[in-house]
Amino acid sequence: MTRFTRSYKIRFEDCDSAGIVFYPNYFLMLNRLIEDWFADALGVPWGIMHHERKLGVPTVNMQVEFKKASRLDEVLEWSLELRKLGTRSLTLGVGVSCMGEERIAIETVLVSVDLVADGVSSREIPPDIRAGMKNYLVDDKPA
Amino acid sequence: MTRFTRSYKIRFEDCDSAGIVFYPNYFLMLNRLIEDWFADALGVPWGIMHHERKLGVPTVNMQVEFKKASRLDEVLEWSLELRKLGTRSLTLGVGVSCMGEERIAIETVLVSVDLVADGVSSREIPPDIRAGMKNYLVDDKPA
Amino acid sequence: MTRFTRSYKIRFEDCDSAGIVFYPNYFLMLNRLIEDWFADALGVPWGIMHHERKLGVPTVNMQVEFKKASRLDEVLEWSLELRKLGTRSLTLGVGVSCMGEERIAIETVLVSVDLVADGVSSREIPPDIRAGMKNYLVDDKPA
Amino acid sequence: MTRFTRSYKIRFEDCDSAGIVFYPNYFLMLNRLIEDWFADALGVPWGIMHHERKLGVPTVNMQVEFKKASRLDEVLEWSLELRKLGTRSLTLGVGVSCMGEERIAIETVLVSVDLVADGVSSREIPPDIRAGMKNYLVDDKPA
Repeated sequence: MTRFTRSYKIRFEDCDSAGIVFYPNYFLMLNRLIEDWFADALGVPWGIMHHERKLGVPTVNMQVEFKKASRLDEVLEWSLELRKLGTRSLTLGVGVSCMGEERIAIETVLVSVDLVADGVSSREIPPDIRAGMKNYLVDDKPA
Repeated sequence: MTRFTRSYKIRFEDCDSAGIVFYPNYFLMLNRLIEDWFADALGVPWGIMHHERKLGVPTVNMQVEFKKASRLDEVLEWSLELRKLGTRSLTLGVGVSCMGEERIAIETVLVSVDLVADGVSSREIPPDIRAGMKNYLVDDKPA
Repeated sequence: MTRFTRSYKIRFEDCDSAGIVFYPNYFLMLNRLIEDWFADALGVPWGIMHHERKLGVPTVNMQVEFKKASRLDEVLEWSLELRKLGTRSLTLGVGVSCMGEERIAIETVLVSVDLVADGVSSREIPPDIRAGMKNYLVDDKPA
Repeated sequence: MTRFTRSYKIRFEDCDSAGIVFYPNYFLMLNRLIEDWFADALGVPWGIMHHERKLGVPTVNMQVEFKKASRLDEVLEWSLELRKLGTRSLTLGVGVSCMGEERIAIETVLVSVDLVADGVSSREIPPDIRAGMKNYLVDDKPA
């Protein structure tokens, strides 16, 4: 099993008037991590996925624990593992740390949807994408 | 017990290329709801709270269920209740609906912090703010 | 000639760590003003305009003068006039003030584009929208 | 004379429901470019600049020409030159291109301000920062 990791530096645009990251901006970083995972690890850049393959992966569920605040210029390491892989959904575990200190823990469930139809009806995760995802599965027995 | 409610229209800026709300933008709306609650119901506009009273209320925990997608020009009703009121933290339950249809359910825990010091150390919720919060408490026995 | 005006309160999400509005957020407010003008004054909500009528109005040119900083909880009055109305483009003058003090002056050119095709080719502004726009034209002789 | 350049990939979060970059997001990219210039070329990360040296560089004037739309997954090259260097302000010329095609041209004026005082009063650009800026000056005679 492999984890997918990316480092994102905290920018001026991310911080609030108290000098710490404004928490909605963490979800932009989370989305970047998942977008980079699809593009760099699963071989499906989201431009192609959304506009040619007409596949979307909206979030349906999320649990977040913010353990410690983060500040401008810190570099956060974002790391993703696949906790469950269903036929039409996936559960990701995401950890965020800075120089070894844990900052955020997230569990999020994404569903695979058909953008040709109404953009909200679920469809099976295509086999090629599913095959790539399995490398990141914590336990080798997908549901 | 009272609920605090506000309606926010979904704008062009909120929507992604699939034509539905990009989920990090829901957390901007959540933050607006809490900001409006402080300003309009608790009598503490955040400009005064942050810059004069040096009090912050960062989020430490959050559970979110996205039940149904929302689209441009829909008006979402956001509604807040106080589920727990501790001396230094509070648990909010937030429901989001559109014309009676449930869209999102959120539970979030905020902590009261001291912005004079490092901006992350907890401090007691000031009595005047706490008094106002009690009106929104689901059950009358604060922890 | 009429001006179209809307007031937007400056929120926590708009402000940077120096406590003033982070300037990219002013362009969100500008876009809200234009979106509200289309929906409330011209009778074309952007959901209908983009998704049913397949018309877009991207920005092609912009001049901005930031005269004075704005802060959390201030209410900014945004006011729009139409300086030029071409067959496929329009030039808007936008003023932003707070309690009579001028804060920002903007001139921006929008072009009418066809979203059925590639989303970037210009098309004529539809007659019904054009008719409404004329009420906001500074001088009665459109180009 | 040197230009400072950075490449930023267009992400899902940058695009609107018409599938092109929502223009306020270009100003986030512009701000990243300037932030990276200060950190990587001038030796002043903005965390240190804002919070320790109490110096801010708000935008006072901006002219923007959007020449061509950009789309998800395109990589934009952002390039900066210094057109004027005053004692308390600087004028930047910024070009944005994709694979040799020009997309956006920006001229923006920043002013150096004192964050100890009110965050809006101008102060002289510190000598060490000014010295680094000169390497990016188009013409060797600062005003």
